[in-house]
Formats: sequence, C-alpha cells, structure tokens
Amino acid sequence: MITKNQIQLLTSLQIKKFRNEHGLFIAEGEKISALLLNSSYKIHSLYATKEWLTGNKISNDLSTKIFETSNHELQKISGLSSPQEVIIVAEIPNHSLQFNDLNSALTLVFDEIKDPGNLGTIIRIADWFGIRHIICSPDSVDVFNPKVIQATMGSFCHVEVHYLPLEELFSWNHHLPVYGTAMDGKNLYECDLEPNGLIVFGNESRGIKQKYKSQIDQKIKIPSFNNNPSKAESLNISIAAGIVCSEFRRRGN
Amino acid sequence: MITKNQIQLLTSLQIKKFRNEHGLFIAEGEKISALLLNSSYKIHSLYATKEWLTGNKISNDLSTKIFETSNHELQKISGLSSPQEVIIVAEIPNHSLQFNDLNSALTLVFDEIKDPGNLGTIIRIADWFGIRHIICSPDSVDVFNPKVIQATMGSFCHVEVHYLPLEELFSWNHHLPVYGTAMDGKNLYECDLEPNGLIVFGNESRGIKQKYKSQIDQKIKIPSFNNNPSKAESLNISIAAGIVCSEFRRRGN
Repeated sequence: MITKNQIQLLTSLQIKKFRNEHGLFIAEGEKISALLLNSSYKIHSLYATKEWLTGNKISNDLSTKIFETSNHELQKISGLSSPQEVIIVAEIPNHSLQFNDLNSALTLVFDEIKDPGNLGTIIRIADWFGIRHIICSPDSVDVFNPKVIQATMGSFCHVEVHYLPLEELFSWNHHLPVYGTAMDGKNLYECDLEPNGLIVFGNESRGIKQKYKSQIDQKIKIPSFNNNPSKAESLNISIAAGIVCSEFRRRGN
Repeated sequence: MITKNQIQLLTSLQIKKFRNEHGLFIAEGEKISALLLNSSYKIHSLYATKEWLTGNKISNDLSTKIFETSNHELQKISGLSSPQEVIIVAEIPNHSLQFNDLNSALTLVFDEIKDPGNLGTIIRIADWFGIRHIICSPDSVDVFNPKVIQATMGSFCHVEVHYLPLEELFSWNHHLPVYGTAMDGKNLYECDLEPNGLIVFGNESRGIKQKYKSQIDQKIKIPSFNNNPSKAESLNISIAAGIVCSEFRRRGN
C-alpha cells in the first residue's frame, strides 16, 4: 500500500522542474532496476510487486525504502503505457566534469538534442562503444527525463551526461580535434579520424548552430552510396551517431 | 468543417483491423504530405488548415478530396500529441514482391520486428542507402501503423515493405548470401560482405528464431571495441541496421 504523498511525488518526477526540486528521478523495469541496484546511484525508494520482491534479493540497507505495491498502484505511478513490476526512485548524481578527463577519450557533444528517445539511444551507443562522456548544450533534453532513462536500457549507469554551454568546452579545448556532422561534410570514410577527439552533432532539424561552426576542424558526412534522386534527406541523429562511433572505433582499433 | 463520419473513419485508421478493412492509412505533417503528394500513392482525402491550403498548390484532380479543417478538428483526428497542419488519408498500395527483383540487390529481412519507431527508422535508413525492399515476417509491426509512417519521415514512399513467411523467401533463395546479426557472430569488419544478399535481423528482445538460424550463411556482429565489462548488452536494432547497412555499402562501393 502506498500513500497519496508517494503517488504525488512519483508522478511529479515526470517533470524536470520537480526532478530538480527533489533531486530525484524515476526508472522502471526489471533490467534497468538490476543495473541501477548494482551501480553507485543512491536509491531513494523502490516500488515493486510481491512477485518481483520474492524473486529478487535486495540489500538489507534498503529495507526501509522498499514498498510492496499492487499492479493497480504501479499503474498509477508509472509513466509507461505498460507498467513494469518494479519502479525505482534514485538520487540525481552530482557528476562533475573535469575537462582533463576528455584528453585521451572520444567524446560526443550535442548542440540542442531534443528528442528523449534519441538521447537515450545515443547513451546506449556510447556505452556499447566505451564512450564515457556525453556533453550536451543546456537547451538539450534532460537525461533524467523518464523517456530518456527508459531508452538507455540502463546504459545511463555507465555513461556521464554533462550539461554546459558549449563555449566553455571549446574555450578549454586547444588540442583535441573537433569533428562535426554536416550535410556538406566530407565522406566519413575518406576522413582522417583520430582516436581521441570531440564529435559534435547538431539539433534534429536544424543541425549545428552557426556560432559553433567555426569550432569544427573537420566536417563529416555519412555517404549514402546511392544515386537514386528520391532518397531520404537525412538519417536520424541516433543512427548517424551509431555509424560515426562505429567507424571511429574501427579506425582506432 | 468535417463530418462525424470522417472523424470516425480517420480515428479508426490508428488500428490495423480498420486500416485493412478500408484499405487506407493516415499520414501527418508537412514533409510527409509533400512526399506523399509527389508519389504514386493514391490519395483518398486531405485535411488541412486554411493556412496550409493557401500555401500549397494541390493538383486539380484532388479538388473534391480536400477538406479545410480547423486546428481544433485536426486535433480530433490526429494521432499525434502535437497535431500538424495537414493530414492525408491514402490508399494502402498493393506492392507485390517479385523474388527475382532481389537478385541484384541488398535486402533487409526482419524476423518479428515489433517496435513501430524501429521499423520506421529502418525504412529511413534503407531509403538513405538505396535499399528498395524490406521483408518482414507476418508477426512484425504493420508498416501502415501511423507511428511507423511518422518515423519514416516520408521514406515509406521510396521503400517497399513486404510481409511473408520467411520460409517462402528462404525456399526461393539458393544463390544470394544470407547474413544474420547475432551476438555470437563474427566481427562485421572482418567478414567478407557481398554487395547483393539478404541481411536478417531478429526480434528486439529474442534475436533470430531458432528455425531460421540454419538459413544464415554468415553470422555477423558489430564489435564494441570496448574492454569495459560494464558495457551495454546490445545495440538498438535500428542502430545495428544503420551500422550494418553503411558497412555493406562502403565495401560494395
């Protein structure tokens, strides 16, 4: 049995303002929960069915934070159309970015990424390819948006997403090569690609903002290898990120 | 002003049963509408605001099929959370697959793809890379599901999606190489990849069904180039399709 206050807290976490106010976010489902419980994230509370609680051993430290919840109640607090058996509320961590950590790394940079599904999928891509840091401009979608968290399939536990004005990143950087995806870029497969660097992706509809274009050392484009004039105008940003990351890793290998 | 019957028809097209009954599907938004109006698809009816109708020249043949619609009415018939200025109802075409068309082509094959966003994004990938045919097992999501149509960004006008038992495809095929993505596959970048062939992708959670595994000549896997043990378990199916298609095209070029 959960209280009205709990329902109110959990549903409020769908909205960024309340996530920031409480310093909490929500994650749903068995797979994400298993990863979260094994991560360094601090658990605020856990809501699960009797069946889930019987089948999963939870650390004793958490015993006061666990609430057996009926399917009907889970439906009330879930943000998904098909609620899962377990919902975790966790503390938003205070990842602080040390620019020097980017020196010997490949880092993804997003100028105003807006779609939660795209950011979540990209975090999963970064995790797959061992990319530790993602930097987003402050006007990007919030990583603790429940739709982002769900789309990561738990990979948010392994990848840090930082929000900062991209000017700060570029004024720090004087040595890492900066790549940027652009429709007028050079064929990705014909570019020199360094193993360490920054790869900048623009907004889903408008691309990279004009003011950042001068920061790009090498504009890159995924070739379509296609002479058909009726082809697609572009690839989805997460697909582009997947192809670009895979090619960077292949070269650096 | 639109009638109750029209509202009823349009909202019913969110559901596959009614799409098949009427032989119609729905597409929303400026970009998709522009592509659809320039394609060989037959338009059943078009609903748009006065502003959209003023700004867009429509063929005279369609004049009896155009309905000026208020924003409020569009909201009623839209399946999207932010309704667009134009909605088109078009006839489901009768694409018939000639197996011989696959002989000198690269074709994507899906064994039970379920997520509409994934199929839509994959159609956009196929369009980008000049892949003309996608074959789906009959238990896959319907290409005319409005969520698929929206995710294609109009690319469904250039790519044909066929539904058939994969046994029929495999019993026809005796000469094209069959590739299949699998967690125990060989590093994609170390495989011989022919320019023409079939690439089979499995269901989002379960992979390729056991009964089709014997049909695969070469199992392929996208390497993670990552020694970090806490990495993601897998890539999203549309990301995998993007990386695989790009690599096939790079080699064939």
